[in-house]
Amino acid sequence: MKSYLVRPGKKLRLSKYRPNDTGDYPNTEDGEKKADQNTRQTLTKLDELQERLYAGKQNGLLIVLQGMDTSGKDGTIKHVMSGCNPIGCVVHSFKVPTEEELSHDYLWRVHQRVPPKGFIGIFNRSHYEDVLVTRVHGMVSKKVVLRRFDEINDFESLLARNGTVILKFFLHLSKEEQRRRLEDRARDPQKRWKFSLNDVKERKYWAAYHQAFQDALEATSTKQAPWYVIPADHKWYRNWVVGKILIETLESMKLKFPPAAPGVNFNRIKVP
Amino acid sequence: MKSYLVRPGKKLRLSKYRPNDTGDYPNTEDGEKKADQNTRQTLTKLDELQERLYAGKQNGLLIVLQGMDTSGKDGTIKHVMSGCNPIGCVVHSFKVPTEEELSHDYLWRVHQRVPPKGFIGIFNRSHYEDVLVTRVHGMVSKKVVLRRFDEINDFESLLARNGTVILKFFLHLSKEEQRRRLEDRARDPQKRWKFSLNDVKERKYWAAYHQAFQDALEATSTKQAPWYVIPADHKWYRNWVVGKILIETLESMKLKFPPAAPGVNFNRIKVP
Repeated sequence: MKSYLVRPGKKLRLSKYRPNDTGDYPNTEDGEKKADQNTRQTLTKLDELQERLYAGKQNGLLIVLQGMDTSGKDGTIKHVMSGCNPIGCVVHSFKVPTEEELSHDYLWRVHQRVPPKGFIGIFNRSHYEDVLVTRVHGMVSKKVVLRRFDEINDFESLLARNGTVILKFFLHLSKEEQRRRLEDRARDPQKRWKFSLNDVKERKYWAAYHQAFQDALEATSTKQAPWYVIPADHKWYRNWVVGKILIETLESMKLKFPPAAPGVNFNRIKVP
Repeated sequence: MKSYLVRPGKKLRLSKYRPNDTGDYPNTEDGEKKADQNTRQTLTKLDELQERLYAGKQNGLLIVLQGMDTSGKDGTIKHVMSGCNPIGCVVHSFKVPTEEELSHDYLWRVHQRVPPKGFIGIFNRSHYEDVLVTRVHGMVSKKVVLRRFDEINDFESLLARNGTVILKFFLHLSKEEQRRRLEDRARDPQKRWKFSLNDVKERKYWAAYHQAFQDALEATSTKQAPWYVIPADHKWYRNWVVGKILIETLESMKLKFPPAAPGVNFNRIKVP
């Protein structure tokens, strides 16, 4: 999975990452089936890892999901996170900021949604919109964007030093696959409710988004809050990679159940 | 499932409900296995029902869980709700109120956590603590408790009229089964971290809690926000009953995917 990591402090060339990569799996029905099996198998560990995280209350885990329209942010949540126990898993989908949110700095609303210790928190879009869509549409200058990169790194450092483990996933979709998905939404009466003409219009900014993502990922992939470029053209491979990184990260946290209450002589407990 | 419903406006005798009821299932290994199978089978419908709820954004579903310590509130969430897509499912576990919360009326913090339209919201404990634990420990008078029943009914009516479907589950545990569960926590080194001496001490108020629950359920089971008394001594039967009522409720809501954007000629859509 290391090959999808954006190495902190290194130059990033997004064009070197193939959105239709399927890693060690052949891009065939068999490959897909095998990957799905392995994803399910890997995610069976989520249950106990999450229970330890929740019981221990020493760390939170924050997962940031970004990507172009139709890149599969919702699908990733559904397919990778549906095995989570909702008692300790919170998704927040960031929308166009409200008037109240706009009257604060751009990290204000984000800070409020950081998962508490013991929780897995998923940001469906995030503070990165403030260096992506805002930049592409000229709502902020390049200078402000560069300042924000520093502010975001400081903010994420604060979280990391105070117990939040951070994973950031960029769902890397090809323009061609986006076209297929949008056409599919328009054609399939069952999916039409998801179709928005605005998504089609945004395609003319594809190159600008690509540039904005590349700059943001390069500037804000840090040791304590790394970015991963997830090949997203094949949903099954995307699920495999995200699920694998999630489980490896939780395992690396060495989560333990908390100790029993001190001073209680458990051998002498009598429940009347 | 109707037999577990607390009939609105009728007298309630909790002692008539058997905590160790297993309904049509024999209380054997086979019965448990069959119930678990049926629960899983029933819950396979959750996925699509929740997707319609989330897409339609016409209603929210609020599930209130109450019950004595060890009655299985957390376990119900884990076993019944873990198949939920966390993008549209939020659990809130109400704890001892903070200083800020205490400086407001008791429904203030609860109102903030009501699930938005499209969401399933689960209250792990709830505003009912304010007519249960507070009453048992003499923090509020009987007179205040009676007034609160009316206020709670008004509050839940407000929610219901504005699109929130409400289900309230009382996990009905026997005192004997609670003893077993507490002893189990004390004896099993893997479970000791969950053990609290305070849970043992609270057992001396068992009868008072029983009375407080009976009064609260009788006064606040309404057509728009019914209470169900869930037999909770057998976890597998509890999961079956809660899962079944959940799915039946979602099915009764006749959830539909929203219509496609008006004014779009889908046959002429070209994605460049």
